[in-house]
Amino acid sequence: MPTNQNDLPTSADVFTAAQNIAGRIHRTPMISSRQLDEFGGAGLWFKCEHLQKVGAFKARGASNALAQLPPDTQMVATHSSGNHGAALAWAAAERGLACTVVMPETAPLAKRAAVAGYGAEIVICGPTQADRESTLQKVVEQSGAHVVPPFDDPRIIAGQGTVALEIIQQCREQGFVPDVVVAPVGGGGLLAGIGLAIAALAPDVVVIGAEPAGADDAQRSLRGGVHITTPQAPATIADGLRTTLGRRNYSVIRRTVRDIVTVTEHGIVEAMRLLWTRTKQLVEPSAAVGLAAVLEHQARFRNKNVAIVLTGGNMDLDRVADLFAEGEDS
Amino acid sequence: MPTNQNDLPTSADVFTAAQNIAGRIHRTPMISSRQLDEFGGAGLWFKCEHLQKVGAFKARGASNALAQLPPDTQMVATHSSGNHGAALAWAAAERGLACTVVMPETAPLAKRAAVAGYGAEIVICGPTQADRESTLQKVVEQSGAHVVPPFDDPRIIAGQGTVALEIIQQCREQGFVPDVVVAPVGGGGLLAGIGLAIAALAPDVVVIGAEPAGADDAQRSLRGGVHITTPQAPATIADGLRTTLGRRNYSVIRRTVRDIVTVTEHGIVEAMRLLWTRTKQLVEPSAAVGLAAVLEHQARFRNKNVAIVLTGGNMDLDRVADLFAEGEDS
Repeated sequence: MPTNQNDLPTSADVFTAAQNIAGRIHRTPMISSRQLDEFGGAGLWFKCEHLQKVGAFKARGASNALAQLPPDTQMVATHSSGNHGAALAWAAAERGLACTVVMPETAPLAKRAAVAGYGAEIVICGPTQADRESTLQKVVEQSGAHVVPPFDDPRIIAGQGTVALEIIQQCREQGFVPDVVVAPVGGGGLLAGIGLAIAALAPDVVVIGAEPAGADDAQRSLRGGVHITTPQAPATIADGLRTTLGRRNYSVIRRTVRDIVTVTEHGIVEAMRLLWTRTKQLVEPSAAVGLAAVLEHQARFRNKNVAIVLTGGNMDLDRVADLFAEGEDS
Repeated sequence: MPTNQNDLPTSADVFTAAQNIAGRIHRTPMISSRQLDEFGGAGLWFKCEHLQKVGAFKARGASNALAQLPPDTQMVATHSSGNHGAALAWAAAERGLACTVVMPETAPLAKRAAVAGYGAEIVICGPTQADRESTLQKVVEQSGAHVVPPFDDPRIIAGQGTVALEIIQQCREQGFVPDVVVAPVGGGGLLAGIGLAIAALAPDVVVIGAEPAGADDAQRSLRGGVHITTPQAPATIADGLRTTLGRRNYSVIRRTVRDIVTVTEHGIVEAMRLLWTRTKQLVEPSAAVGLAAVLEHQARFRNKNVAIVLTGGNMDLDRVADLFAEGEDS
């Protein structure tokens, strides 16, 4: 039975999503590094969603959404700075649907190339949330496409939450339950989904969100108790986290997530450098935000078992040198 | 029973090495990528030795050598452009031995830092093989250290060969035997060890070496039937493969390896880019030489199951942009 888009998703929707997407997505590995454990003063377990289909956890939500489309849908559309667009393009191609992705002109070339590579049409727009939404509206008016939003959608939230079911299962296979799960927050699809999953499956586990200090609307919303929706011009190299927290996402996160912490740009680059050199995993800047949070707020995580979601691995390689230079200047 | 350093290693020595190093090194995973299979027109299986202890297969040989030291050895020494030095430093620290590593001034900073990080002393020398050997000789005269050579040593060859035992086991677990095993060749420790292992365990499997065209002494030796030992100034970004093929290595490779193919610098950079973007694994240039060989000699590998050793993942991150620029100019 399709979920009503206007309602909030429930924990049960996450379990249903896991059934919807079984066999279509990877059960990604969890890895650890003794050196990083020593460095962080905690037991760190990294969930490798950069090894997921399309190189990001977004494949989960997109696949779940397309499992519940209205009958006779021929075409889907969305706006995305990158990974959701690639995920929807991939999921649409798998099911033989046409797909259009509205992308901001600031989206990394690697992410544009991925969307194009799955056969979707790309429409470029300005950098703000308003630009994206108005451009997507035009696409829908012209084509009648069914919109699959990047995060503020119950099907997407439930789909992303399936990563937490695997985290708990995989930790149990290793003989423990994590004390904390840390995930980056941009629009909040991943964090809200994890919150729902953990609330049902392992309610003693603390869920913490992490976001760049230059895009801290989620922290201000959660701590202030009022959902901040003012458009902002977020300043962070973590291009996947520049979006504003969604309405449904805020409602779910408020009930299921303990806190949201912020990290510096320098901390993001340093965490990315550590992940690259110690685990040899090529994660994108947004994916390093969870480790950055543990390192910049060490007292909070000391001696705990912490599961951290590495959210994606898609970036322009020729931006790498710039990223490290930016990090050292800040 | 220790192996005699003056003799050639045997296949049996590889099996003994596997017992010597069990529990000290990782059984690294093998990964595959549907996109790379399509791109290469073959079934490609990557053995992830960049995820090995110290980030390179060299941990195998070093650990095996230190399991067979002469009694009362207090100190070990070697020369290395990087990964063998780090591996020996690591293995020595594990056993409470002092260690000195002679490194050429051209060695990547990341590799120097790794050696220092394991507590070994570093002595810098000129870039040629002769520079390394004369400097090491001085170290030995002053300290009485026991030398563990980087490749021309039966303990090292046998240790590196253990990777092939795992490859065959892991492929069998997946339900097949590979048609070909491809490994990069510099000094030839890895390739000779693989040759010995495969000859005993799976003699129908073809072993192919791969080396940069700018450092092709192994190919010329094998194809010409005469071991070329003339010092050269190898021109390749694959810094791990600049050494000249060792004497014992040549003798073993001649009997156990089908052929050695060369790859271009552009091919190495392109293969590294593909591994980074498609598998998200941060491998060093030398480690991309196996995939480069499959892509530049496609007819030879078409529709075969090919196991490729990803040899290491240690490099200076700030050289990344340069590497890609060099590759595109060549």
